[in-house]
Amino acid sequence: MPKFSRRSEQIPFSPIRTMFRLADEMERAGGGPVFRLHVGDPDFTPPPSVIEASSDALRKGKTHYAPSVGLEELRAALAEKARRRNGLAATTEQVIVTPGSTQALFAAMEIMLGPDDEMLLPEIYWPNYVQQVLLIGARPRFYPFGRGFQPELDKIREQITPKTRAILINSPSNPTGAVFPDSTLRALYDLAVERDLWILSDEAYEDYIFGGAHHSPGSFESDLPEEKRRVFTLYTFSKSYAMTGLRVGYIVAPSTRAGNMLRKVQEPLVASGGTPIQWGALAALSANDAGIERMRDIYRRRRDLAVSILEPAGLADYEPEGAFYIMADVSSTGLTGDEFALRLLEEERVAVAPGSGFALVPEFGPDGTLLNEPTSSGAPEFATHPDARYRVRIAFCVSDAELKEGLERMVRLVERLRKASPAPAGAR
Amino acid sequence: MPKFSRRSEQIPFSPIRTMFRLADEMERAGGGPVFRLHVGDPDFTPPPSVIEASSDALRKGKTHYAPSVGLEELRAALAEKARRRNGLAATTEQVIVTPGSTQALFAAMEIMLGPDDEMLLPEIYWPNYVQQVLLIGARPRFYPFGRGFQPELDKIREQITPKTRAILINSPSNPTGAVFPDSTLRALYDLAVERDLWILSDEAYEDYIFGGAHHSPGSFESDLPEEKRRVFTLYTFSKSYAMTGLRVGYIVAPSTRAGNMLRKVQEPLVASGGTPIQWGALAALSANDAGIERMRDIYRRRRDLAVSILEPAGLADYEPEGAFYIMADVSSTGLTGDEFALRLLEEERVAVAPGSGFALVPEFGPDGTLLNEPTSSGAPEFATHPDARYRVRIAFCVSDAELKEGLERMVRLVERLRKASPAPAGAR
Repeated sequence: MPKFSRRSEQIPFSPIRTMFRLADEMERAGGGPVFRLHVGDPDFTPPPSVIEASSDALRKGKTHYAPSVGLEELRAALAEKARRRNGLAATTEQVIVTPGSTQALFAAMEIMLGPDDEMLLPEIYWPNYVQQVLLIGARPRFYPFGRGFQPELDKIREQITPKTRAILINSPSNPTGAVFPDSTLRALYDLAVERDLWILSDEAYEDYIFGGAHHSPGSFESDLPEEKRRVFTLYTFSKSYAMTGLRVGYIVAPSTRAGNMLRKVQEPLVASGGTPIQWGALAALSANDAGIERMRDIYRRRRDLAVSILEPAGLADYEPEGAFYIMADVSSTGLTGDEFALRLLEEERVAVAPGSGFALVPEFGPDGTLLNEPTSSGAPEFATHPDARYRVRIAFCVSDAELKEGLERMVRLVERLRKASPAPAGAR
Repeated sequence: MPKFSRRSEQIPFSPIRTMFRLADEMERAGGGPVFRLHVGDPDFTPPPSVIEASSDALRKGKTHYAPSVGLEELRAALAEKARRRNGLAATTEQVIVTPGSTQALFAAMEIMLGPDDEMLLPEIYWPNYVQQVLLIGARPRFYPFGRGFQPELDKIREQITPKTRAILINSPSNPTGAVFPDSTLRALYDLAVERDLWILSDEAYEDYIFGGAHHSPGSFESDLPEEKRRVFTLYTFSKSYAMTGLRVGYIVAPSTRAGNMLRKVQEPLVASGGTPIQWGALAALSANDAGIERMRDIYRRRRDLAVSILEPAGLADYEPEGAFYIMADVSSTGLTGDEFALRLLEEERVAVAPGSGFALVPEFGPDGTLLNEPTSSGAPEFATHPDARYRVRIAFCVSDAELKEGLERMVRLVERLRKASPAPAGAR
């Protein structure tokens, strides 16, 4: 058998998908259901109008190729939404519909990053970002967080080199739930202007902020001429409309020229997205926002519930302000997040995502090549950022009752562990 | 605005998508419909069971993330199909469901090609192949065709260098409709073994062969142990079930290890494919094959119709044996395929795809960098292979009546052009 490409060997697996498999295997082995607090897949269904419009398209033969950039009608409606809701200077030509926003991220990175270029990522991040940067042959560098997973603005500049091409912003954040204040978004934007960087703003969770309004960094440049703009903004129907399995996301490019570049890379990357589902997405936009508001209220309630259980147990040191996650702190058990997550699954049938997977730190040699070598698992073992090593991510995508039961089981395990072996001083 | 990545600037647009836009613009400008002979999008609808199963999945809340490699049930059914129909040694673990086979091609290339590696492509090819190889940062080399677009086996070896990693086989072929005989497939396989190359076998048109049966090169190695296998085989529901807009394809990897590598790259590339549509695809497999046989009969009839019009007019110098395309020869008009296609659209409202786009030849410097510089169009102007420059691709994806009318209009233009200015000797 010939060799696999080095890049594909060296990228890590997603830790979330790994927990998926372990939880599935446990359920198949019997013993009842597993409490699934590990995955950010809303426990809701899409609006009825989406189901109806998609089925209608299927029945009426709207089953042929869509344009590689998406249906014209949907793009026009999304441009209107981006202007009205997000304050972006968006035309139809700037909107590219993608089969999910993961694919949108990869396409955007393809047009901004070359081999040996660098991209600034948050130091605690959604794992696909690093997989994507590495698969393109570029290198991630990380900007540090302070309290509550907020960027330490004065330390970001140190991470910028002559090879830096872009900075990724993800607010509200997966996995932390942190929401960056306007002043932070503005400072990041100003830095990008100063150093002539692209901005990739992943706003998948725009609709889930529990206090205040969502702000898009792209709105800072809406008055500038196209050729002076630099923000690619990414949205998805997955979270706002509970459409994870339907695969519709979109990019608002900063200019028509950037939109054309995206059109060009989408041809080899995917050809086009699904046609019936794009008609469904159009119907979602026409529905009123009551469904989103209802889900936001529920996620807020669950966030409050989670904090009310975790905080008294010494497992929460901040309150997430958006998205539907919390990075719980299990350092007091003396176990790493990886060890804790396995024990929790085995002993209490509760699945959570180990924090380490959200903070892998690839290591590069002086010539820029990735040093981490694949192991028998099919991927390298990476170092992990210490702020995430003793944490686990909990997602609020199960019923309140399941969330409560799952978290109470987690606290029960924590108490057992603390009793058995108190954490050594300085475990973190 | 920062710079775009060099790779994304240097890849070409797909010529098919360009004709798409021109034809659309012409129709919007009024004057009635355009005869659309330029695009390989079947003029059929998916089997009713697909529509029903997809709609049912949508209604029943099967709207959550599928595994990144596809639904287990669908993978198992596809493995069974690949064993039974294609003679592959396929297990469920080796089957990766993808959002269309374009995406499958890119994923497979990502795990076999690194930067500066080379991939052997047929010299007349589906344009996305070259876009994909270039976007990965690798280099295409081309193996030559003789009469009827059949590989010249004795000349392929000259194109293999120490950097060659893989060879692509596409039989039946888009755009030529050529079907490689078993002896050719075997010779290509033996060459790959001798030089330790991967094989990427794009069998999108497996169901459309007009004489004899389809053979998969992967069947040559079904008795070998996994670690000795090298063939990735790609299929799609797009053509076999007229599901182009539904986006379901799949790869049969040569080994479990190769399947795991694909799983890993699919996470950053797409996360996962659409869930309801995968239930639809499963239903397609359970349907009987009468639908496919009916479509094959229709494509055969249209092939015969096309040859009966083109051949007497001196526009067909071979008979396609599969797929639903012919590369008509317009050299007698003195016009290139590009010039001819524009005149045909403007004067006769018939859209065909210029042959040049299926034969772009990127040029590389001695250090391996791509020399072609982007122009104001957003992509470079590439040299084109002479065998395709004076041809246009015609797709048999319209009714017999429309195909007949479109081709008669084409002949009419050819006769006008020949009368006006007979082709200079040696135009090709």
